[in-house]
This record gives sequence, structure tokens and C-alpha cells, in this order.
Amino acid sequence: MLVLSAIKNVKEDIKENLLDKFGEDAEFKFCHGIDEAKDFLPEAEVFITYGEDLDDAFVKSAKKLKWIMVLSAGMDMMPFEQIDKQGILVTNSRGIHAGPMAEYAISMLLQVARQTKALIEHEEKHLWDRRVKMTEISGSTLVVVGTGAIGQEVARLAKAFKIKTIGLSKTGKMKPHFDETFPVDQLYDILPRADRVVAVLPSTPETEYLLKAEAFEQMLDDAVFLNMGRGDLVATEVILEAVRSGQIAHAVLDVFEQEPLPETSPLWDEPSITVTPHLSGISPQYMYRGFELFEKNMAVYLSGKEDFINKIDTKRGY
Amino acid sequence: MLVLSAIKNVKEDIKENLLDKFGEDAEFKFCHGIDEAKDFLPEAEVFITYGEDLDDAFVKSAKKLKWIMVLSAGMDMMPFEQIDKQGILVTNSRGIHAGPMAEYAISMLLQVARQTKALIEHEEKHLWDRRVKMTEISGSTLVVVGTGAIGQEVARLAKAFKIKTIGLSKTGKMKPHFDETFPVDQLYDILPRADRVVAVLPSTPETEYLLKAEAFEQMLDDAVFLNMGRGDLVATEVILEAVRSGQIAHAVLDVFEQEPLPETSPLWDEPSITVTPHLSGISPQYMYRGFELFEKNMAVYLSGKEDFINKIDTKRGY
Repeated sequence: MLVLSAIKNVKEDIKENLLDKFGEDAEFKFCHGIDEAKDFLPEAEVFITYGEDLDDAFVKSAKKLKWIMVLSAGMDMMPFEQIDKQGILVTNSRGIHAGPMAEYAISMLLQVARQTKALIEHEEKHLWDRRVKMTEISGSTLVVVGTGAIGQEVARLAKAFKIKTIGLSKTGKMKPHFDETFPVDQLYDILPRADRVVAVLPSTPETEYLLKAEAFEQMLDDAVFLNMGRGDLVATEVILEAVRSGQIAHAVLDVFEQEPLPETSPLWDEPSITVTPHLSGISPQYMYRGFELFEKNMAVYLSGKEDFINKIDTKRGY
Repeated sequence: MLVLSAIKNVKEDIKENLLDKFGEDAEFKFCHGIDEAKDFLPEAEVFITYGEDLDDAFVKSAKKLKWIMVLSAGMDMMPFEQIDKQGILVTNSRGIHAGPMAEYAISMLLQVARQTKALIEHEEKHLWDRRVKMTEISGSTLVVVGTGAIGQEVARLAKAFKIKTIGLSKTGKMKPHFDETFPVDQLYDILPRADRVVAVLPSTPETEYLLKAEAFEQMLDDAVFLNMGRGDLVATEVILEAVRSGQIAHAVLDVFEQEPLPETSPLWDEPSITVTPHLSGISPQYMYRGFELFEKNMAVYLSGKEDFINKIDTKRGY
């Protein structure tokens, strides 16, 4: 059987490890992207991809394909109808972003609380000023909108800082590391309790523009809002208005309605908004963790069992 | 009995709480600093101070004084000989810095790992650049030099980030939240294992200039060194040389041989050194926590018991 990878720049130790573990059962072909990989698709039984390079024609050409391992969590560009038609198994890498994204969230909340921008400015000016008004994140209340793997990891770290954690999700079902959870339709009742709000919701029709101006009106004046889920959770103008009118103290944004964020966007220069270029999930460990997941699923695949990690429903696409 | 406080700007709710709890047993006098408080010292049985305003004459004048509560951990400026002569009990606020200092340490380690300075610079330039080379702090190894209350709190938070924690102290005795502990004389054997080194040692003759050039030679090229203990742990030139020669990747300094750090110090402009103005222990909660300690000790004092929190040996001064 041929295991075909279209992942660019796979590290040598990852390749060696896979050959070491599965070299007797499978032949591996590591290609530098789909242009190089497409010629081998008709022979591949397993295909490893970031999920952005497949179309109907490629899938149709993959006559022997039984399993697509997607080395990311975003599945928006996968041609699921054709994949489903051919009965191909799909697994993805949901969960491996949780670690770096939770680190990002805590890092940014600390940065705002401890006035990092002011401290760096003072450093540049050689200014010894101990009166910078810092707060602690310890002892505060954090509302996490989205209680999946990422939200839970944010909550787990927050608990270490003795932060009270409240989770909002569609069902409001209790999840690990949360002190309380509620259905997201109770949003307006919960937001007034939050010192900080972290949004990690994926983009679905239900979450699109979920946070409207009224949501920010409910938040505390000194609340900090952080969005690292999807950019269409809240309209740019709504956030701008919320910080400019003092409804909240600060917004940290890693995702935007339009990405890359246009150079002319007013978000860049707004003093109470921190912009980062959709990097919360980036990690030097990413490829290792993705292939580690592949390795586990490959063992399941070879054993003929069915208990795959992150198996995708190809009819629903998630 | 008179309880005299020289602490400036004591919050009204703190005063009310103390009167509420101890108003029947004691009279409270809250003064705005020693200049206002000194006239009442001869009548005071209990004196609350930051520990920087007393001299021999003041102590001699305090004929009825039985207990000095120091609302800080630094005791360098206390006239202990005279205090000891008069048999006055001294307690301090050791431990209440642990929370904010540990937050500071984690915040700064995240800042360096996640390239916050570069991200802020890009934001100022409206530059969407996702190639900034970030690392995670999760999964790394942290050496904490000093395993007291502060070091333990740093280790506790680090463990939440799945960081391996190694503690160094005089005795090397095992302490909570450390995976391993060693006597500080094994420093040179331990340092090569550290991705990050956090120093929280107090200033004693034994720790003065403990970290010499050879210590930095032992560290990893990509190690980050953070000092929030005392400035005389390491000479300025040694740190400068260590980062300039690439022996370590970055130094975060909150304490210095000379404070305030002179405007002309080369530390300010060194790209691989982050300077903060001795603020790791500053917290808006500080006064509350200090008076909370006082409250507990006041209950002990009134009960005639001896189990004071943070009782100081007035012969040794710590």
C-alpha cells in the first residue's frame, strides 16, 4: 500500500520514525505539495494533506484511496461530496491546536493586564517608572465562549492562575476545567460577570455575528475581550465602537472578517486593540503533533479496527 | 492598646474591616507616613510599617512597643539591634509577593517565547507577518534558583504549562511543585538542562554574585535567563557579555546592581535584554494581602498565643 504525503518540508526524523514503525506494511512517498503529489494519487491508499489542496478531480483520480488524514482542523476546502461518494475515510487534527492557542490566550491576557506595551515603550525611552497600573489575572473571572478542546485547555491553564472559569456552548453541558457552564443563549446574563472573555468558537452559521453590539454593552467597562476563534463572530465596527465608547477596556484580535487584515484597517492603530496575524495556533511542534496523530490512526488502520481519532462525518463535513 | 500604622493611603474598606474585627480590643491610628506617625510611637503597642522608615531613635522612643508588623518582605533597613534589645516581636509579609511575582515570571517567559516585541512592532507598521519565529513554553525545562514561596509558585504555574521544574537551593531539599531539586553548589551540572532559568534568590552574602560568567557558559545557546530576585546575584557586565556573545538567547531583568537603573545603562538598548523597573512584586492586591496577614497575626497576638505567621529572628534579621 502507498501512503502519500503532500505536506511540504516534512522533517527527516518524522519520516524516519514512520518508516521505522510502518515500513514493513506500507510504502511512503513524501511530496513537496500537491503539484508533486498529484501524479501519485491514483496509486495512493492513504493521503496526508493540510486539506486545502484537494478538488473533485483529484479525488476522482484517486481510485485506490481509502483514507485522507488532514493535518489541520479547518475542513472548509475539502470536497466532501465527492469524498463521501467514494466512501473515503477522513480524519483530521482537531485538538493539536489547543496547547499553543491556550498559551496564546494566557500570554495575551497577561500582556494586557501587565501593560506590556507601556513597559516596552518605557524601556525604549530608558524610563524607570514603577507607577504603571498593572492588574493581576489571578482571582478574576473568565468567560470562555466555546467549551471544546481549545476552550477546555484555556480553562485548564486559567484554573492554575486561580481564575474562575465559566464556559458557554450550544448545549451548556458541563466540561472539564470549567467551574460553571451555560448554553450560549444565556450570553447576555453571563457576560456582566466576566473580567475577561475569550472566544474560541469555530465558524458555523449559528455563530456568525453572534456577538452583537448588545453583547459588548453587557460587558464590564474594564473587561478584556479576546477573539482567536473565527473573524466572523463579531463585526469589525462593533469591536471598534465597543472600545472607543469605553464599553470594554481592551480587545485582543487574532482573527478578522478579512484576512490578511488590510493595511488600512483602523484596528491596527486603535490603542485599546491588539492585533496579531492569526497565529494563535502556530507552533514549532505542530508538524510533530500532527504526524503523531497520524501514527496513532495508522496503527488503527493497519489493525483493521475502527476506533480512529477525529473521524469526520463526510456527509456533514465535521 | 494603640495600633499605629504608618502605611500611606490605607483603603477605607481595610480600615473598616480592622475596626470591625478588633475595634473592641484596640484603638487604631492610621497615619500618612512616619512623619505623621512618629509622635504617636511612644504610645503604640503595635506598629505597622513598610520597614523602611525606622531608625534607632524611633525605636528607642517607642517605649510601649511590643510588635512591629512589616508590610513587605525586605528587611534591609530595619534597625534590628535596637529592636532586639527592646525585645520587640517582628513579623513580615513574606509570601504575599509570590502570586504577582510568579505571574510576572510566566508573563515574561511567554513574552520572550512568543516574540511579543516583534509582534508589537509589526502591529505598529500594519504588517501582517505570520512567519515570526515563536516557541512554546509548554514541554520545556525550567530551572528555578531559589525554592522558597516565590520559587514554588513559579514552579506551580510552570507545571500547569507541562514544564519540567528543577529547583536549586542551599540545601537542595525537595519542595512542592518541583520535579527535582538540587543544592545550589551543583549549579554548573544543572544549568545545561535548562531552557529557561528563573532566579528568585534573596540577597545574602552567600548569593552575592553567585552567577558568574562560567554559569552562563554552561547554559544552552537558546536559554532565557530571568532575574527577579536581587540585582547583586549577577554583575551587569556578565549578563551583557552572555547575551552579546550568544551564550544565552535572552535575559529578562527586573532587578539591578544599581536601582533605579541609570538612564545611560547599556542594558536598556540591548535587543536581547528586556528591562522592567523592579515591578514583579507590584500588585493592586498588595495592601489587602498585607493587612490580611496582619489580621491573622493580630488574632494570634490578642489570644496570647505564639504561632505568628512570618515571625522574624531579630538577632539574625530574617
